[in-house]
Amino acid sequence: MPNIKLILEYDGTNYHGWQSQAGSGRPTIQETLEQAITALTSEQVTTHSSGRTDSGVHARGHVANFLTETQIPAHAWTPALNHLLPPDIRIVSSEEVGPSFHARFSATGKRYKYCILNRLAPSALDRNRAWHINRKLNIRAMKRAAEFLVGKHDFSAFRGSGCNARNPVRNLLSLAVKRQGAFVEILFEADAFLQYMARNIAGTLAEVGLGRFGPADVEGMLKSRNRTMAGRTAPAHGLYLMEVFYPAP
Amino acid sequence: MPNIKLILEYDGTNYHGWQSQAGSGRPTIQETLEQAITALTSEQVTTHSSGRTDSGVHARGHVANFLTETQIPAHAWTPALNHLLPPDIRIVSSEEVGPSFHARFSATGKRYKYCILNRLAPSALDRNRAWHINRKLNIRAMKRAAEFLVGKHDFSAFRGSGCNARNPVRNLLSLAVKRQGAFVEILFEADAFLQYMARNIAGTLAEVGLGRFGPADVEGMLKSRNRTMAGRTAPAHGLYLMEVFYPAP
Repeated sequence: MPNIKLILEYDGTNYHGWQSQAGSGRPTIQETLEQAITALTSEQVTTHSSGRTDSGVHARGHVANFLTETQIPAHAWTPALNHLLPPDIRIVSSEEVGPSFHARFSATGKRYKYCILNRLAPSALDRNRAWHINRKLNIRAMKRAAEFLVGKHDFSAFRGSGCNARNPVRNLLSLAVKRQGAFVEILFEADAFLQYMARNIAGTLAEVGLGRFGPADVEGMLKSRNRTMAGRTAPAHGLYLMEVFYPAP
Repeated sequence: MPNIKLILEYDGTNYHGWQSQAGSGRPTIQETLEQAITALTSEQVTTHSSGRTDSGVHARGHVANFLTETQIPAHAWTPALNHLLPPDIRIVSSEEVGPSFHARFSATGKRYKYCILNRLAPSALDRNRAWHINRKLNIRAMKRAAEFLVGKHDFSAFRGSGCNARNPVRNLLSLAVKRQGAFVEILFEADAFLQYMARNIAGTLAEVGLGRFGPADVEGMLKSRNRTMAGRTAPAHGLYLMEVFYPAP
């Protein structure tokens, strides 16, 4: 049975995150995708995802895979599913992968971007695309704080209270902060992320940028392994899942 | 009576352009703004605009002005109106200007950006923000074509058939084409623009990039002063009014 890997882009504004959940009211990306696959194939398909995303989070490179009995050339899944999906979810690419490939368990790392609009005036065009902070952020302080977080650490101070990962140790390979015009971008790369980890780090770095914490305070937060010591959770609509990494086939 | 100048940003997706029109079904930016001003002041205000924008066109720096009897500090119009406007229209700044200032008649120039997403896959996040062209554009050919258009010319070949400007001569001060990652941006600066001029030039340059016209063909189009000789009108949702220029006060 062919195993199809999809790379998806989506605007998360109108979705209750990736994973199907009872009673949320809003659709999820997963159920919308599975409905499109069923409409195309008449199969009941379960998709495996590189991970969950929170309600309102966006993706440029979310990965999902599924097993199918339908014989469609692998690249043809892209236009066929895009024809059926709403315009705020697009398949970027589709390919056939080996039977052991699993979007979540095969993943070796992920890259996220957090986007802050840092100017006085709010924005119409970026209203659902970036966290608006109207006081000027101290980028140099944010960069210094970020240095304390890079590496293999117990990130308990930056995990959501509902996180059910058994092991809170993650290897944060890089954490960059850069100003791009009116925007401040925070770029994360790690072997994996705990629940809310990217948003909690982004919120904490923003508070450093606003002077509420000094850069060195972040080292104490990390060592405390206590969520209440770290900064706030940055809003979901500034976060983008950019890329998921897998071993070369 | 104070004369208030506003700079506006808007996401044009859900609007029928700037100017109030009977029977369009969708709201316009102008009527939405005027309703907010009336809700704040109880005055019936007429706003003057730097120009019309087509349905679906976006703005980062549209300018409007109006006379008011309401005594509000000039900078306070920004938060007060933003509180009343829908989130896809934002006031970026407000200031009091002299009585002779008129957003349209005082303008000395404008800057537009046209945004093309040039990659195979369509985009969810940029679906209303850029024209998707899935075949690779030849940027060098587009740049060469653009050179023929810079300067003071009769742009009749690039004006909409409904354009009612008496004089079709405009001074195109600069026309730049550049690749930015997956995007191709076309940047226009002129003393003023004819109806559809930016979109007709963008559409023609895109056709040059696709090899349907040679760069030198654009010189013949311009000289023909015949709209039917030039390329297609690029879709509205890739166009952004970036800035309107005025003499220093």
